[in-house]
Amino acid sequence: MLAELRGLNEECGVFGVFGHENASQITYYGLQSLQHRGQEGAGVVMSDGEHLRGHKGEGLVTEIFNQDIVNGLTGSSAIGHVRYKTAGGGGYENVQPLLFHFQTGSFALAHNGNLINATSLKSELEAQGSIFQTTSDTEVLAHLIRRSGLGSMKDRMKTALSMLKGAYAFLVMTEKEMHVALDPQGMRPLSIGKLGDAYVVASETCAFDIVGAEFVRDVQPGELITINEDGLQSEQFAVATNSAICTMEYVYFSRPDSDIHNINIHSARKRLGKMLAKEVNIEADVVTGVPDSSISAAIGFAEATGIPYEMGLIKNRYVGRTFIQPSQSLREQGVKMKLSPVRGVVEGKRVIMVDDSIVRGTTSKRIVTMLKDAGAKEVHVCISSPPIKHPCFYGIDTSKSEELIAAHYSIEELRDLIGADSLTYLSPEGTIAAIGHEQKNGECGQCMACFTGNYPTEIYPDTKHPITKC
Amino acid sequence: MLAELRGLNEECGVFGVFGHENASQITYYGLQSLQHRGQEGAGVVMSDGEHLRGHKGEGLVTEIFNQDIVNGLTGSSAIGHVRYKTAGGGGYENVQPLLFHFQTGSFALAHNGNLINATSLKSELEAQGSIFQTTSDTEVLAHLIRRSGLGSMKDRMKTALSMLKGAYAFLVMTEKEMHVALDPQGMRPLSIGKLGDAYVVASETCAFDIVGAEFVRDVQPGELITINEDGLQSEQFAVATNSAICTMEYVYFSRPDSDIHNINIHSARKRLGKMLAKEVNIEADVVTGVPDSSISAAIGFAEATGIPYEMGLIKNRYVGRTFIQPSQSLREQGVKMKLSPVRGVVEGKRVIMVDDSIVRGTTSKRIVTMLKDAGAKEVHVCISSPPIKHPCFYGIDTSKSEELIAAHYSIEELRDLIGADSLTYLSPEGTIAAIGHEQKNGECGQCMACFTGNYPTEIYPDTKHPITKC
Amino acid sequence: MLAELRGLNEECGVFGVFGHENASQITYYGLQSLQHRGQEGAGVVMSDGEHLRGHKGEGLVTEIFNQDIVNGLTGSSAIGHVRYKTAGGGGYENVQPLLFHFQTGSFALAHNGNLINATSLKSELEAQGSIFQTTSDTEVLAHLIRRSGLGSMKDRMKTALSMLKGAYAFLVMTEKEMHVALDPQGMRPLSIGKLGDAYVVASETCAFDIVGAEFVRDVQPGELITINEDGLQSEQFAVATNSAICTMEYVYFSRPDSDIHNINIHSARKRLGKMLAKEVNIEADVVTGVPDSSISAAIGFAEATGIPYEMGLIKNRYVGRTFIQPSQSLREQGVKMKLSPVRGVVEGKRVIMVDDSIVRGTTSKRIVTMLKDAGAKEVHVCISSPPIKHPCFYGIDTSKSEELIAAHYSIEELRDLIGADSLTYLSPEGTIAAIGHEQKNGECGQCMACFTGNYPTEIYPDTKHPITKC
Amino acid sequence: MLAELRGLNEECGVFGVFGHENASQITYYGLQSLQHRGQEGAGVVMSDGEHLRGHKGEGLVTEIFNQDIVNGLTGSSAIGHVRYKTAGGGGYENVQPLLFHFQTGSFALAHNGNLINATSLKSELEAQGSIFQTTSDTEVLAHLIRRSGLGSMKDRMKTALSMLKGAYAFLVMTEKEMHVALDPQGMRPLSIGKLGDAYVVASETCAFDIVGAEFVRDVQPGELITINEDGLQSEQFAVATNSAICTMEYVYFSRPDSDIHNINIHSARKRLGKMLAKEVNIEADVVTGVPDSSISAAIGFAEATGIPYEMGLIKNRYVGRTFIQPSQSLREQGVKMKLSPVRGVVEGKRVIMVDDSIVRGTTSKRIVTMLKDAGAKEVHVCISSPPIKHPCFYGIDTSKSEELIAAHYSIEELRDLIGADSLTYLSPEGTIAAIGHEQKNGECGQCMACFTGNYPTEIYPDTKHPITKC
Repeated sequence: MLAELRGLNEECGVFGVFGHENASQITYYGLQSLQHRGQEGAGVVMSDGEHLRGHKGEGLVTEIFNQDIVNGLTGSSAIGHVRYKTAGGGGYENVQPLLFHFQTGSFALAHNGNLINATSLKSELEAQGSIFQTTSDTEVLAHLIRRSGLGSMKDRMKTALSMLKGAYAFLVMTEKEMHVALDPQGMRPLSIGKLGDAYVVASETCAFDIVGAEFVRDVQPGELITINEDGLQSEQFAVATNSAICTMEYVYFSRPDSDIHNINIHSARKRLGKMLAKEVNIEADVVTGVPDSSISAAIGFAEATGIPYEMGLIKNRYVGRTFIQPSQSLREQGVKMKLSPVRGVVEGKRVIMVDDSIVRGTTSKRIVTMLKDAGAKEVHVCISSPPIKHPCFYGIDTSKSEELIAAHYSIEELRDLIGADSLTYLSPEGTIAAIGHEQKNGECGQCMACFTGNYPTEIYPDTKHPITKC
Repeated sequence: MLAELRGLNEECGVFGVFGHENASQITYYGLQSLQHRGQEGAGVVMSDGEHLRGHKGEGLVTEIFNQDIVNGLTGSSAIGHVRYKTAGGGGYENVQPLLFHFQTGSFALAHNGNLINATSLKSELEAQGSIFQTTSDTEVLAHLIRRSGLGSMKDRMKTALSMLKGAYAFLVMTEKEMHVALDPQGMRPLSIGKLGDAYVVASETCAFDIVGAEFVRDVQPGELITINEDGLQSEQFAVATNSAICTMEYVYFSRPDSDIHNINIHSARKRLGKMLAKEVNIEADVVTGVPDSSISAAIGFAEATGIPYEMGLIKNRYVGRTFIQPSQSLREQGVKMKLSPVRGVVEGKRVIMVDDSIVRGTTSKRIVTMLKDAGAKEVHVCISSPPIKHPCFYGIDTSKSEELIAAHYSIEELRDLIGADSLTYLSPEGTIAAIGHEQKNGECGQCMACFTGNYPTEIYPDTKHPITKC
Repeated sequence: MLAELRGLNEECGVFGVFGHENASQITYYGLQSLQHRGQEGAGVVMSDGEHLRGHKGEGLVTEIFNQDIVNGLTGSSAIGHVRYKTAGGGGYENVQPLLFHFQTGSFALAHNGNLINATSLKSELEAQGSIFQTTSDTEVLAHLIRRSGLGSMKDRMKTALSMLKGAYAFLVMTEKEMHVALDPQGMRPLSIGKLGDAYVVASETCAFDIVGAEFVRDVQPGELITINEDGLQSEQFAVATNSAICTMEYVYFSRPDSDIHNINIHSARKRLGKMLAKEVNIEADVVTGVPDSSISAAIGFAEATGIPYEMGLIKNRYVGRTFIQPSQSLREQGVKMKLSPVRGVVEGKRVIMVDDSIVRGTTSKRIVTMLKDAGAKEVHVCISSPPIKHPCFYGIDTSKSEELIAAHYSIEELRDLIGADSLTYLSPEGTIAAIGHEQKNGECGQCMACFTGNYPTEIYPDTKHPITKC
Repeated sequence: MLAELRGLNEECGVFGVFGHENASQITYYGLQSLQHRGQEGAGVVMSDGEHLRGHKGEGLVTEIFNQDIVNGLTGSSAIGHVRYKTAGGGGYENVQPLLFHFQTGSFALAHNGNLINATSLKSELEAQGSIFQTTSDTEVLAHLIRRSGLGSMKDRMKTALSMLKGAYAFLVMTEKEMHVALDPQGMRPLSIGKLGDAYVVASETCAFDIVGAEFVRDVQPGELITINEDGLQSEQFAVATNSAICTMEYVYFSRPDSDIHNINIHSARKRLGKMLAKEVNIEADVVTGVPDSSISAAIGFAEATGIPYEMGLIKNRYVGRTFIQPSQSLREQGVKMKLSPVRGVVEGKRVIMVDDSIVRGTTSKRIVTMLKDAGAKEVHVCISSPPIKHPCFYGIDTSKSEELIAAHYSIEELRDLIGADSLTYLSPEGTIAAIGHEQKNGECGQCMACFTGNYPTEIYPDTKHPITKC
């Protein structure tokens, strides 16, 4: 995934399993397969029916857990979380699942999404004496649950959820139950599967494949699911009106082997590439994609045009957190980091470079320059989605519109800025058609807000200065 | 690269730079780009013209080095090494470069390849009182140099090299010089480049791209190059007769963005795939490749046949050294590790699965099973090289022929064993033609020994029980 | 200190500095000198006048902090804490100072002592919706402060402190102030000093010597001190009635170079030894002490009797957290761990072994056996304090009376159990007289509860099952 | 021990056990008890009768080994080594035991002492083609053994040892034997003990006590002991003429609970203090010792004079390798590090400060200043050994005479330099008499070279620029 290169930060991922003797280890593998959704931190909390215990840390799943740690988390239920990489904030405290102990019991919380009214809710709660442990919006739900009276956990959750606005997929685990909730617009993917007799829940279906589980169904917008020893009960805690799954999940975030709403991501991307090929008309010698997220679209583009697909750019697999950044001087001498051009493939060629999106434009410019330095005669940039002109308030790290270059320049200006010979974006209509999401009541069922500015929810005052989210 | 999955272990990589103020950091980036050639260990030794100092360790380059360590290695020349993952042996001592201090000066040694007469040379040397620090064949050269009289380093190296048999690419650095030597058959790739006024040497040209250097030329079989403040001097220490670069470098080992003998690896692999498409005739719905090394061949195959290329298998990028292996029981329940099938792509389809080679066959069997479990109607395995029937004594970890499944079964038996609907190998002639290496005196210029059993050198008695190599 | 050997766990230590440009580093050295009061964890929180930031961890001060970390904590005020080693509980969360962030500001808390009504306070707070981050009694103060209205921090603290029962020395730091509070009985030591213009606060005066500060005065029972840019203001938040400093601070806990209430600890211990010598009459050849805490008393004993002091027992300085415990079988073969007898000193001798206390008796028995095995003809155990028969609820880890062997056996039975030739305890009167604390209103000014059962405060129902304290 | 404070570096320690099923763990405890002899590094090599394997590292024994590592070293024999802290050199390679593998077998080497002809031997060996792995003098023995013909290991060792000059205690272990050798002057302590049926060897007898072994006898000067399944055989490889054990072993190096030549170290130090008391006549209020090594002498001094012994200086136990050094500015503000004065003990008093030696004088000056700053009215420095005026070439890190302050100043000048009110050294005669070593042929049996300049061996040219020793 191109997160760091592109300034389009990935969101989080959640995973849960109820009723499996290896719950923690299953969760470990599930998180592993969701690692592309967040590399800042990860955690697992398990229940053995009597107590909740967990382990979490900053870094990758494989850095945080080892055999001894996983063996020590023996329980029949578990929830886990991978956290996306924030610029500044972060810190151990904010790594999820959040685990709360009370003299009367415990619960743990994992969250993917962004609450747009978290700041105002937090102010009210603090005024009443609440002490927050984290700077994350997720903790608001915990305090709302604790202050929402004496009913069952399910009732308290319904009361609490009714106060939240924004995008969220929540897993809440107590000693004996697991609760699964999705926001009324269904903006984040969340699916239910079965692994033998156990239930599994995951942000993406690729996690089911990795652990050998079978997909059952997607969680519905506004649905609250409770899983316990009596099985799975579902109810709607909110009326879902305008279902709007994030389009960028198809274009960029999700793993190619995941299905969202029964649409395979690799196939959707290939169709986006094919649709893009139909919308443009460029003579070229080779098609190449920016690894990893744009490879499928590039192959689709190549197939549709008959121009051969070539590996014009290669990604260095071993660059990690501990990579020593080259100094400015070495960079100017040509030292590359994560991505390098394949001279033998692009030299003397007219190159179509397929990418999934442009955020700040700096990476696109760097890649175009790289290809030209490697001898490409022409570089035509084709983007397999529309221009991102509007900030996202629902969990994607593009919340400042100043950073969105397409909000400030015309396409021709942008082409000039990145140094390409041509620049083409896929149309919004083409995007919707290629993804092929089921239409309901004339609605496309996708959130296109970052392209169009039509937000599926009311926008609150505190969305401008959001607290740390996940 | 599929090393761990496939039992085809990667060999080592070497990198050197002479005359650059950031020599160690340049070497760090060079090693980084050669990381696919070895993940067991890495090291850098630098010279400031007066002293040699170094740092090495077990693990990945980014795990072993940090900014402080690299900053501490201030010198104008450096050599580095990445070491392949051995099954048992290994250990810190064997990590290279090997660094030797004497009262009269120091030298450091980095080596890629395998000496086939190391055991007998070591016996002779020990009988004379030599004490070896490592179990690596590389150290033999150091002792031969020290025992070869009083001449210049270059003369002593020539005497020492004349006693070695097998495959080797050597970098030897003293306080003021760098020596570069390639075996008389030129079995390992080794190239010279320039970075401003500095010289660079690397196992693969991708390292030149990463550090911003320009390719100058390949080191020739039997050539000894000495670089010092007077520039670069070359001489032949042996008459190169039957030049024979390892074919697997094209098929599997090298990075797609490297060129060997002016042939780009990605392009060569694509041609191997196209050639394979010509040699077979299978009706199918999709072509897929085993990531990462077979993707190029699969795309070539798809282009030649018109069958669409799809991402039918996906590799988990975050699986590393510290990954917790699933227990047998979890594996049987379907927990996957590094590779998973993309159900949405293969379900109900006739799949052509392109792979670069089969060693033990266990991985091929696992992948075929995986694809069928994910709903593939048929799985046709197409291998973009001939059957590996003979052990390699020159640095590739297939030295026991018992492990080479193609040595013991017919293709039909093998097809049955791996559970494929058909199994096709590329012919030796097709392999040679697709790679397109320059022919000399009717020789293809490649080592095809593992396919044909025709070894380009004499085979010594001690090749059967080799000491640790690199 | 003999904590681990003796089952008499040490309590915590606090340190603070206000108005020094190297506040964090000064705190580091202060904590270092208080390390004997707790080895489980340590932390520092600093304020730069605008923000609070901190670092904490499990282990020793020198394990948790390094130069970079301390350099990163640039501020003009800081508080720090060392935490004693608990048996089970513990964990990173409980390491202090606790740091709380609110939308309207932050504060940090460090605590030495034990609140005896923490459990009931916590129940009430949770019923009102409070969420606790730790299992420590210290956090109760934070919630009480946050729920105690809208006044100044000082007012809120007074309200909150009035609800606490037990032993406590608190440091509370906000962005611009430091608050220092001692319980109404003054059960824990706490002193104020000056370092140039800066104020320092510490559990023991040895911390002042280590950082080059001058002792100013002891904090008074029931006193709340506020330090800010206007200087130091003091007021009484409670009427101090029966001042009762813990006697074990003199006997065992504190460092020999500290002064409590102007009494030097080494000198007090030497007087305890001399007093003990007066109360017994034993013929012997050598006097020895159990290192480190009983050396002073043993030397006093030797001086008073004229029997030579010898180093009959030696402590292994390098045994730490990571020491490999000998197996039962090796232990039976005679493998020693922390303490070994000096055969050359005790062989054939009648030995007086001075120790400061007996808790479970197992260590005393082990030492007596050791001395006899090393050839001692007689071993006379002399304890420089009275028998510990009653649990401590104020911060010392002897809260279960089952473990206090002197509560269950007569002195003669106990002598027999530990295998000594004689066993003598110092009388309560002798203890009080030797320490020489200033008497007020006929009160000795010391807490003698563990010897006499006369507790200086009411005992609450929840003292029986206390939550984690410090 | 005062190594770091005093510039008088400690030497190494060796330990071995033959014929015990827990050989490696026994060695771990043995090294642990010898830790005061070296904190730079430690290692253990074990034999299971067929193979030698080991583990070593830089740091303390407890930092280098853990339960898993020790469990992994299952064998019936083992040798171990602790290495003293060198200023510059050092490094992993130099940590002992050195382990050498040959095609015909293996051996391991541990050494305490210093070879004074190592440099010339190394030059000769390198000229013959030998490659040294370390910069340690110890490795010379290995090369000499390997070059000394075809006889038994014992014969080869005898040939090799006959070429060595200087001080050495060697342990050499092969698969089936252990060889123990002491130099012809017996300059380093080395003793043999029994642990059940197993033999143990150690630099100090305190190691026997720690592992529960019984002392059998000291190894004799010029003796070579071979232990194998037939038991223990001894022979003299050299005629021992002037036996000369290092006097500083009694004064400073060894642990108080060790016996050397049947003299207990604590008792010897107490006698040194008593003898010193006889030689001086100072009126004073308190006697104090510099911890830890001078406490015994100070107590002896106090006993002899009747002036009370007090704890006037205290050592910070938790200062280790990772301690953050105070900046110059903080030091000037009075921040202390390892040692602090006890104001309550020295204020207003005339203090006799007993120390074991003065090397550079800087530490003495610092301590005197510290005591005066803490209010001492007078400080009289009494040294329990004669002035060190001559470098040691036998293993103690005082090989440069420029650093020996007593070589350059009169006692009165030195007194002035360190700021004491008086300075007294014990006389050489008093030193010899107090230690009470058995006299032979009018020889005191001790090496007094650093006091008198009478070296017990010839001094070789290369002693001036010695290679790294141990």
